[in-house]
Amino acid sequence: MTSSSSKTRPNEFALIARLFAPLATLPGAFGLTDDAATIAVPRGHELVVTTDAIVEGVHFLRSDPPDTIAQKALRVNLSDLAAKGAQPVGYLLALSLPGRIQLDWLETFARGLAKDQREFGISLIGGDTTATPGPLTIAVTALGIVPKGRMIRRKGARPGDLVFVSGTVGDASAGLALLRRKAETPRTLIARYRTPTPRLLLGMALRGIASAALDVSDGLLADLGHIAEVSHVRISVEADRLPLSRDLRRLGGDPVRAATAGDDYEIAFTAPVRKSAAIARAAANAGVLVTAIGRVGKGEGVALLDGAGREIAVSRRGYTHF
Amino acid sequence: MTSSSSKTRPNEFALIARLFAPLATLPGAFGLTDDAATIAVPRGHELVVTTDAIVEGVHFLRSDPPDTIAQKALRVNLSDLAAKGAQPVGYLLALSLPGRIQLDWLETFARGLAKDQREFGISLIGGDTTATPGPLTIAVTALGIVPKGRMIRRKGARPGDLVFVSGTVGDASAGLALLRRKAETPRTLIARYRTPTPRLLLGMALRGIASAALDVSDGLLADLGHIAEVSHVRISVEADRLPLSRDLRRLGGDPVRAATAGDDYEIAFTAPVRKSAAIARAAANAGVLVTAIGRVGKGEGVALLDGAGREIAVSRRGYTHF
Repeated sequence: MTSSSSKTRPNEFALIARLFAPLATLPGAFGLTDDAATIAVPRGHELVVTTDAIVEGVHFLRSDPPDTIAQKALRVNLSDLAAKGAQPVGYLLALSLPGRIQLDWLETFARGLAKDQREFGISLIGGDTTATPGPLTIAVTALGIVPKGRMIRRKGARPGDLVFVSGTVGDASAGLALLRRKAETPRTLIARYRTPTPRLLLGMALRGIASAALDVSDGLLADLGHIAEVSHVRISVEADRLPLSRDLRRLGGDPVRAATAGDDYEIAFTAPVRKSAAIARAAANAGVLVTAIGRVGKGEGVALLDGAGREIAVSRRGYTHF
Repeated sequence: MTSSSSKTRPNEFALIARLFAPLATLPGAFGLTDDAATIAVPRGHELVVTTDAIVEGVHFLRSDPPDTIAQKALRVNLSDLAAKGAQPVGYLLALSLPGRIQLDWLETFARGLAKDQREFGISLIGGDTTATPGPLTIAVTALGIVPKGRMIRRKGARPGDLVFVSGTVGDASAGLALLRRKAETPRTLIARYRTPTPRLLLGMALRGIASAALDVSDGLLADLGHIAEVSHVRISVEADRLPLSRDLRRLGGDPVRAATAGDDYEIAFTAPVRKSAAIARAAANAGVLVTAIGRVGKGEGVALLDGAGREIAVSRRGYTHF
């Protein structure tokens, strides 16, 4: 870890550096003993980079376990890479630590990182630790690779395409609501809030199949709105087709709410009708549910339709944490 | 700007995205309208990446101008690239914004970024904006390129090498002390605190010349300690040789204090004696003062020596912000 680390609480930060050094498994990361890391990009490939920060009280709860906080910080970034069809390589971590954070907390945090590094085949390649008088803030920059020119863009949806979403929607938001009520079950929903699953295998399989894609973080309708905007199309989603988990249905979760809830970290994408069989194969190979939920048309914006094809009025399209 | 942006204060964050979009000048940044950016690394080169976060009240003052806060966030990262001999390409920006930050503040902030982008030939390539109940926190990840295998490491100093530092030391720390006393002059020292100068041209010129290098952020002696540690050598610095600015001398600044003050963002490096002429040329070409300040020997640790060659006792080797 670099520079500002030893400006404050030098001994503690030296310990942190030692804690994170084993996570730097790529040779170019130099065991985090240098100011920077090097990354070689294989010939015919280009690098894909993305950054997302998560803040205590905004994106996670102070009471969340340290290992799942680490995993969430990492996974919200890997989810961006997944939606772009990129293969993750590594990440940089900028930690702003409040004074109350103790070494045992950080040990559990580092274990969460280590677990996900093994699961997703990635390495820590750089970091910075600084003190903050404010809430715990974790900024991650994730790096991946794609064959040159093969990154799946948000732009590219065309009228006539079908609209798909991976997994189920609305679970994470319900999980957060449960945690706020101090509920501990259903655990599946709480896990969906704390440790979203980046759909990396699916994303890579969708290269050359999906015409546009993004990860669903702000709410399905809000995010499809980004595709509609940059692709200059209108997207219609059928509420009855939205994939809701059994646990969410049991809690009375409804499609309208699920379509506007945040933190899903699923991939929403569009593809020509003729790619349907290829998509089914990609989904099966990745072991992920993929559901056709709507259509791309001419025009602009996103509409949620009921069973009779009438537009459902939706007051807010994205989830607001406050 | 991505995902968590629209989770909170959606309209404001949409405005921010529009404010930053013109800064995404590289084609692979897609005007910040996608989840991620692509970067092509020229053949025979590798990418160099580094991250540093700065926090209000820790690395800058709340009263600092927004444009210089932006510049400092960028420059502390560019300084790492400079010390590694890398040519900067672009950066990602994760902003955690307190509620009090208004759009006019952000406009000035963006102008600071734009100014430095022109000065250093770089592009914004990705970002994330989120709300925070805490202090303004700015995490930057900077990306640069070097010819393969040519990154200047911290490891590589050898007994017999000379030790050099660019520019002058101790100015930024004095500038911070002035600001804390509400002083407004000497402006040069305050500017050194607010807008350090990454020594990019010098760093690139030192490829193949310097045996080890790093950027001085925690204090010259503390940082040279990192070179000593990973290079398994002892570094001796002669206090009388330390380059102090005229303004710092006028304020009564002394070498011992300057050698332990933070925020210099100069390059400290080692090189074989036979490279002295090449170093003088590199310094002249880069338009930067470079001063020989000591020697590398066998052993470990860093010693500050007086005019008679006796070790000066230094209680703390790095600067503490609190």
